[in-house]
Amino acid sequence: MNDNSVYKPRAASSEEIANAAAKANKAFKAYRLKSGEQKALFLETIADNIASAKDDLVETAMKETHLPRPRLEGELVRTIAQLRMFAALLTDGSWVNAIIDTAIPDRKPFPRPDIRQMQMPLGPVAVFGASNFPFAFSVAGGDTASALAAGCPVVCKAHPGHPETSDKVATIIYASVPICGLPDGVFSIIHTTDNHASIELVTNPHIKAVGFTGSLNAGKAIFDAAVRRAEPIPVYAEMGSVNPVFILPGIVKEQSAELAEKLATSNLLSTGQFCTNPGLIISLKSEATEQFLQQFATHIQNAPAALMLTGPICKGFKAGVGALQQNDKLGKLVSGKEVPGDYISAYMFKVSGKDFLADKNLSHEVFGPLSIHVIADDEAEMLSIAAALEGQLTCSVWGTEDDITANEKLVRQLELKAGRIIFNNVPTGVEVTYAMVHGGPYPATTDSKTTSVGTNAIFRFTRAVCYQNCPQVLLPDELKNENPAQVWRMVNGNYTDEDIL
Amino acid sequence: MNDNSVYKPRAASSEEIANAAAKANKAFKAYRLKSGEQKALFLETIADNIASAKDDLVETAMKETHLPRPRLEGELVRTIAQLRMFAALLTDGSWVNAIIDTAIPDRKPFPRPDIRQMQMPLGPVAVFGASNFPFAFSVAGGDTASALAAGCPVVCKAHPGHPETSDKVATIIYASVPICGLPDGVFSIIHTTDNHASIELVTNPHIKAVGFTGSLNAGKAIFDAAVRRAEPIPVYAEMGSVNPVFILPGIVKEQSAELAEKLATSNLLSTGQFCTNPGLIISLKSEATEQFLQQFATHIQNAPAALMLTGPICKGFKAGVGALQQNDKLGKLVSGKEVPGDYISAYMFKVSGKDFLADKNLSHEVFGPLSIHVIADDEAEMLSIAAALEGQLTCSVWGTEDDITANEKLVRQLELKAGRIIFNNVPTGVEVTYAMVHGGPYPATTDSKTTSVGTNAIFRFTRAVCYQNCPQVLLPDELKNENPAQVWRMVNGNYTDEDIL
Repeated sequence: MNDNSVYKPRAASSEEIANAAAKANKAFKAYRLKSGEQKALFLETIADNIASAKDDLVETAMKETHLPRPRLEGELVRTIAQLRMFAALLTDGSWVNAIIDTAIPDRKPFPRPDIRQMQMPLGPVAVFGASNFPFAFSVAGGDTASALAAGCPVVCKAHPGHPETSDKVATIIYASVPICGLPDGVFSIIHTTDNHASIELVTNPHIKAVGFTGSLNAGKAIFDAAVRRAEPIPVYAEMGSVNPVFILPGIVKEQSAELAEKLATSNLLSTGQFCTNPGLIISLKSEATEQFLQQFATHIQNAPAALMLTGPICKGFKAGVGALQQNDKLGKLVSGKEVPGDYISAYMFKVSGKDFLADKNLSHEVFGPLSIHVIADDEAEMLSIAAALEGQLTCSVWGTEDDITANEKLVRQLELKAGRIIFNNVPTGVEVTYAMVHGGPYPATTDSKTTSVGTNAIFRFTRAVCYQNCPQVLLPDELKNENPAQVWRMVNGNYTDEDIL
Repeated sequence: MNDNSVYKPRAASSEEIANAAAKANKAFKAYRLKSGEQKALFLETIADNIASAKDDLVETAMKETHLPRPRLEGELVRTIAQLRMFAALLTDGSWVNAIIDTAIPDRKPFPRPDIRQMQMPLGPVAVFGASNFPFAFSVAGGDTASALAAGCPVVCKAHPGHPETSDKVATIIYASVPICGLPDGVFSIIHTTDNHASIELVTNPHIKAVGFTGSLNAGKAIFDAAVRRAEPIPVYAEMGSVNPVFILPGIVKEQSAELAEKLATSNLLSTGQFCTNPGLIISLKSEATEQFLQQFATHIQNAPAALMLTGPICKGFKAGVGALQQNDKLGKLVSGKEVPGDYISAYMFKVSGKDFLADKNLSHEVFGPLSIHVIADDEAEMLSIAAALEGQLTCSVWGTEDDITANEKLVRQLELKAGRIIFNNVPTGVEVTYAMVHGGPYPATTDSKTTSVGTNAIFRFTRAVCYQNCPQVLLPDELKNENPAQVWRMVNGNYTDEDIL
């Protein structure tokens, strides 16, 4: 566990935190005006240098997180791909969502002016690294990549679960700054285990937005501090969810063993330490469901004991398990072998639909390899369970074609609850694409209107500015008549990549 | 003044507020699934019926607000145009921003799933009517139109400054609901002058977003209540600004009289009761500037005394003037004729750049016909003033071509401060177009990432939902392969209105 790690970074002082924010603010003035190509080069340089340092980074992260090599190698590839994806977005240039309404000089009673808008960066961003993704949601992860792509300097608070990995990645970013001709302060890392220090960062007046991945408690504390500032700022906190999975009656009859294997594997993946871990599985009472539960239980019983990411996470998991074990509404429980010390086993609980609906505590996430199986009496109760859900990152539906079309109401209900609705697949594994929504209503996140994965993550750190009757020479290139970069724009209501004549 | 109005609507009880929210929530389940055409018909029907009732509505508003007939007639036309603009947006259908990434079955190491996202409504919206726009930012104004267009029912808190106008417009909306086959509760109006009742509405768990136009104090109180809910919700509060106008040295030399006339007219328009009123005018010390100030002063002195919208607004204006009159850093003051009772005169103050920079109070809005003229020593001081500004709805620059190109730094600074940068025109008059940004950094609004005017206002009330491997039959039409409505979509990174083959 990191608690025993030899690597002990110095905790940032209040003065150092304030300095990092002030330097980020100073850097912002120059960085925001760099071209898309210049910012893309920065992201590509970071990606290249991470790729070169791959072996050392993966070994350091293995030591600090207990995550296995293939998982960390895959995550590093993803991290590099994210950086390159945003670089490609910048090089293409259309991401700024240019919207142009040309003047109508002879409009009555007054001429219509020329109005042109595009997205511009908000300012310095505080990024809080996640415990469970030492690369992809940490120092050079999705939040940092999207903020830097938007034109925002980053002050990153490293997660204490992997400080050495964090510093090694930070060193790569620091080295990339002067190579790309960028100002000092465009990126800084700070270490602290003191919550007050984190709040100092969030409430520093130079910070204009926050990206966070972690627990509900920590995310909510950051949100609360940010909205109570003299100038409130947006907080994009991804705080996890139980990712409900609805199993319809036809498919469980046809494929209970396959379903049990896929879902249990997803539930056990990386010791259950994914924000998209399927922690709540809702089935209909039936013989097939009983068979599915037994098959699922076998996977749980056979799961090897494992070390979690950090001591506090392990403690939190054990407390969550303990609370569920004391809940007398929960049915027969299955778990892996009892193990001593810091090792943990996987757990599986069972509860009736009625009892689940009566106890809000059963909806709360226990971060780790644990699932609660809710057995609904009928499809109406299943629908009530869907309606009672809190906000989620994902909801999944497993069914045959007949199952799914017969349960359109369920799908329409789940649309109100999550950012992503998945059909016949596991929630773990978040594709990094244009259409991905990794977000959802509170408490899954503090801003359901955004995504922390995929190209649209950039818009968390931008706002639209419009220019009215601006001389061509002062317009950003993306808004000029001649459209030098040939970006896609909406001109008088129509999409085009042509010049304005 | 409305204080003396014969029309006294009954204040909504706590139970009535809760009922309106509950009915909105029930209506949401059906309303959100109506087609774009059905929602467009609703907006068109409201627009038609407002147009039919035009004379009565304008006369009622004249009586309640003291705004002149031409102004109110223009505002009614704008209100109707806003409703029809959103109807057209719905009929076109492309506004949902469909983004589709098709599956890549042979991708290694895992197949890439099919992912499709589009914008969907958030849920019931609380709309707070504005005092200064009895039509365009009230019961059937921009917030209501954009929320209904998004698929969100509306509970509207009428502004107490024009309750009879509000009820007449509400009656039109109520009558349009059954005609369009829509559920009861899709729109409700409530009246109250009790701040607690407003907070009850904002904190009702069924309410999922808030649209507000009004003062900083009221908007901030609503924001604070909304972010402290068990489930925080977004608040789009447009709270006004001083709309700084920078006058560059060349143009004032060439056109001081024309400039003075245009800016003073804008400052006096509707007794200065616009959120885009130019309340802060920054010039460089020069003979031409002295001449401009004298010409501006003549317009202020000649402005007729007028009644403001409401008693509290009049009281607020007088208090703001009083505070400025006691500030010994302010230079010679000019005002219209002294008048008794509820009538007010226009005011104009003058201050040095240095003294302005030293006193934050001089940056705060006094809602009404008042301007503070800051005389900067040089362009460097002008730039310091720009850098010290709080968030604004608009910033304007007046200059010759040479002036403007010589002051690029000023323009780049103002981009950080406002939602709209205007060249050689007055800030009053907000075009309702695709590219408009009527918003800006705090304290101009509580969410700088949005606009309350123009088509993009709809996105305040939506969030993206994505479907992973969803059967075609359950996808919304906008995401189906065959693209029945021929909407524009981003498919694998490219814009197209074609089907997916």
